[in-house]
Amino acid sequence: MGTVRETIDFPQDQRAFLQPYLPTEQNSSSPRPFVTLTYAASLDSQIASAPGARTALSGPESKAMTHYLRFKHDAILIGVGTAVADDPALNCRLGDIQSVDEQPRPIILDPSGRWKFSADSHVIRLAKEGLGKAPFVLTRATQPPAEMVALLSEIGGKFIKISGTVLERGFTWEKVFNALEHEGIKSVMIEGGGRVINSLLKPENKALVDCVIVTIAPTWLGTGGVVVSPDRQFHNGQVLPAPRLRDTIWHPLGEDVVLCGRLASQSKS
Amino acid sequence: MGTVRETIDFPQDQRAFLQPYLPTEQNSSSPRPFVTLTYAASLDSQIASAPGARTALSGPESKAMTHYLRFKHDAILIGVGTAVADDPALNCRLGDIQSVDEQPRPIILDPSGRWKFSADSHVIRLAKEGLGKAPFVLTRATQPPAEMVALLSEIGGKFIKISGTVLERGFTWEKVFNALEHEGIKSVMIEGGGRVINSLLKPENKALVDCVIVTIAPTWLGTGGVVVSPDRQFHNGQVLPAPRLRDTIWHPLGEDVVLCGRLASQSKS
Repeated sequence: MGTVRETIDFPQDQRAFLQPYLPTEQNSSSPRPFVTLTYAASLDSQIASAPGARTALSGPESKAMTHYLRFKHDAILIGVGTAVADDPALNCRLGDIQSVDEQPRPIILDPSGRWKFSADSHVIRLAKEGLGKAPFVLTRATQPPAEMVALLSEIGGKFIKISGTVLERGFTWEKVFNALEHEGIKSVMIEGGGRVINSLLKPENKALVDCVIVTIAPTWLGTGGVVVSPDRQFHNGQVLPAPRLRDTIWHPLGEDVVLCGRLASQSKS
Repeated sequence: MGTVRETIDFPQDQRAFLQPYLPTEQNSSSPRPFVTLTYAASLDSQIASAPGARTALSGPESKAMTHYLRFKHDAILIGVGTAVADDPALNCRLGDIQSVDEQPRPIILDPSGRWKFSADSHVIRLAKEGLGKAPFVLTRATQPPAEMVALLSEIGGKFIKISGTVLERGFTWEKVFNALEHEGIKSVMIEGGGRVINSLLKPENKALVDCVIVTIAPTWLGTGGVVVSPDRQFHNGQVLPAPRLRDTIWHPLGEDVVLCGRLASQSKS
């Protein structure tokens, strides 16, 4: 059973505002990949009404923009929670794509081996059909299950072992980005979920993020969903400055707004 | 000791986008006031880093807009929590103001008589100096303290008793707006705090709100502040549709964005 090759259009005249925030050739000499943090949220900063709930938040224009951003990055990274909850496709359906070589590489951050994928998983099926690349799974596991190793290997994916300091039962982001660089990945778009995003907004990680692109839809999901809001950080009993974006633009897109910016090292407040 | 008459300018060419969302003469025949819900929040939907914390969120352009909106409404309403925590001025410092008659009336929603104001309270001092109107305090108390009654009466303010059904230890919003209408108030701008805003975003109240104006600053305050996010409402075990704005515009203003819209009765999601 083949997947229909539905394509998505993101018109040329809507692409210009993103240009200053996209990875460029110049960045390719950097010792680590260009990192774009992206998410779509409600006015009350929720990316889903519950973990794994397919939540209709942003409009078709914003979704087209997401596929354009995927087209512009070498890889898409998500946390294992999102992989387990959403069974996402993680490919680019933009009409611009001519061959699978132009597809972004799906990266799953799965320190503890929680993602039990199979031939039926969306991302695996798409790779088999040539509609997306096979995933790289970043793990601490020394011996992942043999059938999963075989399944990935068959379609060009693999497990990548990351060792060393364990932070929040996961990895340090430096090690993650170094591993990607080692694979020749020059740019990565980080799409979620909440835990991954909140972690990258922490003071110790934000220097690793080159650009942030947030889409906001004019709705309030109401308490109880998956919230983007980093933990506050304290030093000597003082709260550290809140992360703030500089060099920002707000671009209305359909019913939503798209905010692009860079993480400043100091907050105004 | 007089207060310096610092005035604020909100340039004419920046006012146009607000026009469709402002109270108009036509609304004056309505049986209840025109209600504008406004707040300024961070990307993670917080209006303050803690109750009562003066939080530098939005830029000078957005603050000027707030004073223009105050100029365009007969009254400004806040909850008692904000009155107690912030000791707010609640006047309009726009250069357009020619006399105190043009100032908005401060309305404090204080069902249980928690606001212990005195001659030193900011809003009282400004009224004495002719830089703002004296507040109306909406309460359930049958006999507010005599010295507070006298203090208000001296400057043209008063307590207004509201009785009847008690909802959330407060009032029903219908009774609040009816009381304002009875005072000849044809438009009211609701400025906070979190509990008041979240209450008006509930399904049973949102029909009472004519316009919503939200300012968003490009910063994340981090978990632990005062969050705007209405409680989810359930009916027969189903979550009711999330409140969504229709007829929206997103207007970049300084480093912030201003979202104007009307509360739709149905969500898309």
